Amino acid sequence: MRKYHAKKMDKKAIYPYQPWKITEEEFLLHNNHHNESIFSLGNGYMGLRGTVEEDYPGSEETTTPGFYINGVYASEKIIYGEEAPDLPGWGQTLVNLADWSEINLYINEEKLDLLKGHVLDYKRELDMKQAILKRELAWEDRQGRQIKIEIQRLISLSREHIGAVRYKFKPLNFSGKININSAVNGDVRNHHHLRDKEALNVTDSEIDTYKGYLLHEVKSTKFKIAYFVEHLLDSSLKKNCEIKKRSSDKRVDWIFEINARKGSEYIIDKIAGINHSSMKEESPLSAARASAARASISGFETLKQEQMEFMSGYWQDVDVKIDGDEALQQAFRFNAFHILQSAGKNGRTSVAAKGLSGEYYEGHYFWDTESYVLPFYAFQRPEVARNLLIYRYNTLDKARKNAKKMKLKGALFPWRTINGEEASGFFMGSTVQYHINADIAYAVNLYYQTSRDQEFMENYGLEILIETARMWLSLGNYISFCDSRFCFNVVCGPDEYKPGVNNNAYTNFMAKFNIEKAAEMAEKIKKQSPEKFQKIAEKINFKIDEIDEMKKTAADIYLPYNEKTKITPQDDSFLYKNHVEIDDIPEEELPLVKNWHPLIIWRYQVIKQADVILLMLQLGNKFSRDLKIRNYDYYEPKTTHDSSLSPAIYSIIASEIGYKKQAYKYFMQTARLDLDDYNENAYQGLHIACMGGTWLALVQGFAGMRMFNDKLYFYPYLPDEWEKYKFRLRFKGSQIEVTVKKEKVNYFLISGNKVEFKHFDENIYLDKNNLSREVKIKKLLDANT
Amino acid sequence: MRKYHAKKMDKKAIYPYQPWKITEEEFLLHNNHHNESIFSLGNGYMGLRGTVEEDYPGSEETTTPGFYINGVYASEKIIYGEEAPDLPGWGQTLVNLADWSEINLYINEEKLDLLKGHVLDYKRELDMKQAILKRELAWEDRQGRQIKIEIQRLISLSREHIGAVRYKFKPLNFSGKININSAVNGDVRNHHHLRDKEALNVTDSEIDTYKGYLLHEVKSTKFKIAYFVEHLLDSSLKKNCEIKKRSSDKRVDWIFEINARKGSEYIIDKIAGINHSSMKEESPLSAARASAARASISGFETLKQEQMEFMSGYWQDVDVKIDGDEALQQAFRFNAFHILQSAGKNGRTSVAAKGLSGEYYEGHYFWDTESYVLPFYAFQRPEVARNLLIYRYNTLDKARKNAKKMKLKGALFPWRTINGEEASGFFMGSTVQYHINADIAYAVNLYYQTSRDQEFMENYGLEILIETARMWLSLGNYISFCDSRFCFNVVCGPDEYKPGVNNNAYTNFMAKFNIEKAAEMAEKIKKQSPEKFQKIAEKINFKIDEIDEMKKTAADIYLPYNEKTKITPQDDSFLYKNHVEIDDIPEEELPLVKNWHPLIIWRYQVIKQADVILLMLQLGNKFSRDLKIRNYDYYEPKTTHDSSLSPAIYSIIASEIGYKKQAYKYFMQTARLDLDDYNENAYQGLHIACMGGTWLALVQGFAGMRMFNDKLYFYPYLPDEWEKYKFRLRFKGSQIEVTVKKEKVNYFLISGNKVEFKHFDENIYLDKNNLSREVKIKKLLDANT
Repeated sequence: MRKYHAKKMDKKAIYPYQPWKITEEEFLLHNNHHNESIFSLGNGYMGLRGTVEEDYPGSEETTTPGFYINGVYASEKIIYGEEAPDLPGWGQTLVNLADWSEINLYINEEKLDLLKGHVLDYKRELDMKQAILKRELAWEDRQGRQIKIEIQRLISLSREHIGAVRYKFKPLNFSGKININSAVNGDVRNHHHLRDKEALNVTDSEIDTYKGYLLHEVKSTKFKIAYFVEHLLDSSLKKNCEIKKRSSDKRVDWIFEINARKGSEYIIDKIAGINHSSMKEESPLSAARASAARASISGFETLKQEQMEFMSGYWQDVDVKIDGDEALQQAFRFNAFHILQSAGKNGRTSVAAKGLSGEYYEGHYFWDTESYVLPFYAFQRPEVARNLLIYRYNTLDKARKNAKKMKLKGALFPWRTINGEEASGFFMGSTVQYHINADIAYAVNLYYQTSRDQEFMENYGLEILIETARMWLSLGNYISFCDSRFCFNVVCGPDEYKPGVNNNAYTNFMAKFNIEKAAEMAEKIKKQSPEKFQKIAEKINFKIDEIDEMKKTAADIYLPYNEKTKITPQDDSFLYKNHVEIDDIPEEELPLVKNWHPLIIWRYQVIKQADVILLMLQLGNKFSRDLKIRNYDYYEPKTTHDSSLSPAIYSIIASEIGYKKQAYKYFMQTARLDLDDYNENAYQGLHIACMGGTWLALVQGFAGMRMFNDKLYFYPYLPDEWEKYKFRLRFKGSQIEVTVKKEKVNYFLISGNKVEFKHFDENIYLDKNNLSREVKIKKLLDANT
Repeated sequence: MRKYHAKKMDKKAIYPYQPWKITEEEFLLHNNHHNESIFSLGNGYMGLRGTVEEDYPGSEETTTPGFYINGVYASEKIIYGEEAPDLPGWGQTLVNLADWSEINLYINEEKLDLLKGHVLDYKRELDMKQAILKRELAWEDRQGRQIKIEIQRLISLSREHIGAVRYKFKPLNFSGKININSAVNGDVRNHHHLRDKEALNVTDSEIDTYKGYLLHEVKSTKFKIAYFVEHLLDSSLKKNCEIKKRSSDKRVDWIFEINARKGSEYIIDKIAGINHSSMKEESPLSAARASAARASISGFETLKQEQMEFMSGYWQDVDVKIDGDEALQQAFRFNAFHILQSAGKNGRTSVAAKGLSGEYYEGHYFWDTESYVLPFYAFQRPEVARNLLIYRYNTLDKARKNAKKMKLKGALFPWRTINGEEASGFFMGSTVQYHINADIAYAVNLYYQTSRDQEFMENYGLEILIETARMWLSLGNYISFCDSRFCFNVVCGPDEYKPGVNNNAYTNFMAKFNIEKAAEMAEKIKKQSPEKFQKIAEKINFKIDEIDEMKKTAADIYLPYNEKTKITPQDDSFLYKNHVEIDDIPEEELPLVKNWHPLIIWRYQVIKQADVILLMLQLGNKFSRDLKIRNYDYYEPKTTHDSSLSPAIYSIIASEIGYKKQAYKYFMQTARLDLDDYNENAYQGLHIACMGGTWLALVQGFAGMRMFNDKLYFYPYLPDEWEKYKFRLRFKGSQIEVTVKKEKVNYFLISGNKVEFKHFDENIYLDKNNLSREVKIKKLLDANT
């Protein structure tokens, strides 16, 4: 382990370790930016950053307010330093939409402002069991008037178009006028990426006593967004309250003027129905109005109740229990909570790199979804995994067009996208990563193997497998200089520090897998459902000969191995690059991607993120343990982990080869990345793939779970630092619970008829008569600790 | 030869073949755009496209008016699709400046417009002997009034700040009012590249009876440009003329209202003094005023006389005579004329890719100058070659900063620049071409060897050699996997279709040359001028040890050679790329750079321009004839010549290895590229490097001239298609004339005391007693015809 990694781990915790909560105990401006991400709420459809309800009193550098709808983007022409043919013409940028949560409170014209007067008491708490964000504070204004405020906020997980705020306040030592100014603020802009700061038009608004709406249109893409807001006032409040309305070009405001009585508690519930429609569809206003009306009839307490019920079911499936490490226990729940909030579940959206918690990466979907998030769902909430793949299926036509642009056959999925078109302005960091095709095919296979969802494979999966495989067949060539093997030139593996290389090992092996799976599945469905097969074959003009061609090509693919070093070379040129000691690089020059010109980085044997090492995981059955050790020993010292996608994978392989100390350290680096803000950039938004990686590092790392050729394997062990851990998995319709202790593991069938798997070399079979098995952990050779 | 090349040669000539002239015989809108480039005038300081004096009546797509001052640019922030550290922040774009040549003529309010009324007679003629552009036309307006007009235009070659127009007219069949409206039109904009269409401010203007000025400022860079114009009217005109003045925000206008008499001839001479100053300097107005005043006192006839005298001297040095091919004779003069017009000669400017004849490539200087244009000057007008190198010397500090950015030592010259800073927004097409350092060092050595200019080497050359060499030492590394040779990774040779490769052969050999020359020259000057050496060493902190280090490193550089194919591989990965038959590529997909995504191009064994083949020329003494043949046979079928820099070099090597037919065809493809508009893009501006290449193809190709290790060689032959050709060269203070006939060559000492060289393996010595030698041409083995 290098010093660089150790260093980051020194940071002290920002929040107390609590099993189910994240708590902010003091309002500090310098923590605000980070908190906005940590306390963001979402439901996969929409997301709201943890910006405070009242006007934020700090400087612009410490805040990025944000409300987003997954997949709602603006588009601008990409400007290139130098033009080239067929480069993507238009970008896609997730739009920062109206702030419908804004509420300001005035005591006799004096506005609640935590930097003025005195904050007597303060606590903000994200309750992950209930999916509620709660803020309690007591504040004294400059005239000595004290007020207690409690705000609860939720984005409904059961009603995707509903957000709500409960605003409760009580004058502690005075009676008098209190104004509550509640707004839908459409005067917003993107803080990053968009050159046009006026991406949105308010096209309509209306305001009534308690209700009203605002209608936004994204100028460039014609997305229409409706925010319909209702206020629910308790009856005592209604009596003591005069309501004023204000509406301008860009916002609607309700001012509730209240004659408040000392010691009385008042509650205003604000319910927002939020819908959008795309270009050709009708206005989303009536849908938003209906959503809001239904939710208002239900009321805030019901919405809260629904949240709890939803979460209870969720935690049943995904909760990981770790005995002996509170910090980790908290982190696992925090990560699972945000993975839930980030994932589009409607087959038209996916998981953005930052989820719905920030503008960075423009709300784009990357391979992160399939390689880091989808396994989490495939083994725990398969229906979400399915919908993430349906999203890709729905963009297949655009991927076909993308392939055509590149003079390739089949389909080439975009490296970064929202609408299915490539949105990157730098092809050396995007299009060159053809491996995304194989990553998606790998995920199709993973979902199919865990779920046995035949209907999916027949209607969606096979078509994706064939079209992605066709791309590889047209990309590669038989190269006489390379023993006439089938090679892939000018590609880039997961390690973005080496773009444009020949025969990246990850790419070649994964392409082979992709092609083999396409051929295998085509044969299988042809046999099992000939009519279905016929339909697909006609649709995509698939000839039976292609199956043989695929098999032959897959068999001929060049699989890099270097005899001299006895390792898997990352690509043809990697071993010929300059050596650099990463420990000798001054800390301020890391991450390299932010500090070195690309041409410098590319010259060195320096790796951004797991590449060959990721291959050791994904296709681990193709590599001997010894080769994995040699590869790890070779690549680990060369890896900066400048991507948050890296440490989890190193942790998994370290676990497999018995490097337990390294496994644990890399795991710790990934588990609390955002909570402890190791990279000092969580304010930009959360690292969702890293959160998925943490789960992988536990389940595939410590518990050694693998799935190859339709079989499930476990090679579990307990890190020395813990007492016990436990998690649940779904597999072929059953759910099992795995509890790992020091010497023993318990496998328990939670639901379903039966399940079969291997524990080390032992076959385990659970069914209704054998619900539970306790087995001993076999000791793996500790190659190094 | 491939069909593609043959095809282009089918185009029929646009202008009649005339030895000293380019003549347009009819005013045709569809030729106008091309004519604007062909008829552009310049003197290295400024350039004026061949736009007509009157308002152009055609559509926007057929015209790009332009007046430029070499090195006067605007700057804009470069926008990147994806940011990365240390990328160039600001672009540089040659500014299209005021049109001071505008003159409109009205017959009784009816404006001269060649699309209205009738053109009775028309001829435009570029006279290359006199450096004058003349247009004669007779026009009948819609009322039947006929007028004869003759316009002469020049950009003074002896007075760099002077341009002039003589406007002569004669009413043929009427007497009446004729208005001449002469302007300085500051309402101009760049037609390409600049996003800001308002790059210029008019900061001041003044207008008097015959004189006046306009002052421009480039908003972004604060360049100030003064245009001071005087009108000279003959006395009869003065008497019959009323003068009105008009001045607005953006332009000044003189209206000469003339009571013209049928059959009388009237002349208005318009003299413009044009100066500029940069940020910190004083206004250029007084200089422009003084230039204009002096030129006006001299008068148009004197300016014309000076032009002729200047050109007479120029042609004495550079004229190439070809008997037996009128088209080529014309082309050689046309090319030499534009090379003259394009080259900055003041040590602060250089030669833009398009000279001063268009906006394309933003007026940037590339390696074109040193590798394609500088030899022309070094052997014919050495003082210009010297100043082109002084320009580089003057930007050495910026090149040092550029190296630092790239974590390199010494200096790294920018790939494209005006002010010495890198101006490219795509590093895979710029910074990666480190070879520009070696190209400049090569040019330093070339100029030194031809001129023996010791003062230059001591004061400028050595510092350039050392600083460029230092860059190579820090860029390369000893690579154990490559037999522990010193390698250069992630570079790009002249072939821009293969960027980011390892050990590009051209780069490695040229870097070795660069380093060796630095060490050699440092030792030499240390011995010859120890004080001078001491001064330089102190200035750049050069330690004596560095000489040995340079020698050792140069000796250790990996020099690519492939044992299997027995060729020089273009780079480590070239032989491993996919094969493509260029003849199979549909014609509409060429040039590839305009039609294929870069990632496609990079995958194939397809070459944009001479790379290994250029190396065979520059360091031809390092390669056997057999290897040259094998390399040519290997690379020629893989080269698209999508760059105009390519055919000339292939022609030279084809000549050397006896492929005479190919040599001739490639030569023909390069010689009249712009005149015949093979690439259909001459309207964008002229291909200056290609023009230099044509001269190289004759002198180094057919005449087989080489200069290695201070010695001059000739291996001449006469193409079958010609009767004779003759050219002059300067070498070490002497000038010789070489006349090549079918069987014999005559070498004649024109000036200087003596000259020594080799004709094939024969030593030739000329001095005052042996002014001339006639020798037989030895027959080289015709490897292939």
